[in-house]
Amino acid sequence: MPLFMDIHKHVDGLTAEAVADAHKKDLETQKKYGVNYMQYWFNEKDGTVFCLSEAPNKESALRVHKEAHGLIPEEIIEVKAGSM
Amino acid sequence: MPLFMDIHKHVDGLTAEAVADAHKKDLETQKKYGVNYMQYWFNEKDGTVFCLSEAPNKESALRVHKEAHGLIPEEIIEVKAGSM
Repeated sequence: MPLFMDIHKHVDGLTAEAVADAHKKDLETQKKYGVNYMQYWFNEKDGTVFCLSEAPNKESALRVHKEAHGLIPEEIIEVKAGSM
Repeated sequence: MPLFMDIHKHVDGLTAEAVADAHKKDLETQKKYGVNYMQYWFNEKDGTVFCLSEAPNKESALRVHKEAHGLIPEEIIEVKAGSM
C-alpha cells in the first residue's frame, strides 16, 4: 500500500497530550478507510506534526484526519521508505 | 539525544539509487559528529526527501549532510516521536 507523509504546521495549542489524543482518534477512525497511521513526530514549540501512514490513496489518509479530529495537514506527500 | 526531521524539496535528479547513495554517505560521515541518521522517505516525482536523525543539535545534523553530499535541507525541525 502507498505510504504518505503529511505535515501539519502552526497547530494551535499543540501539546504532547493533544497530539496523542488526535492520533488516538485517527487510529479509531482509520479502519473503515483502509488506512494505517503508523507513526508521528511533533514539535510543541512551533506546532509542527509529521504523520506517516499507509493508505490506499491520499484522499483516504486525509479523510481519516478530517473525520477523526478535523486537523488537515498543509501538505501530504506520497513517499517510499528508504532502504536502510 | 534530540531527534530531527529534515525536509529536502525539489532535489534535481532524485532517484531511489541517488538518495540511497546520499544516505550511505551520511552514514559514513555521521560518526565524527555524534549523529545517527535513522530513516528516510522520498518521492522521486517531486524530489522530496524526509530524513529522521538523532543528533546533539541541529547544526551537527546539517553538518553531516553538508560534508557527506552537500544536499542541505530546506527545513530541519526538532521533533519528539509520538507515543504509539
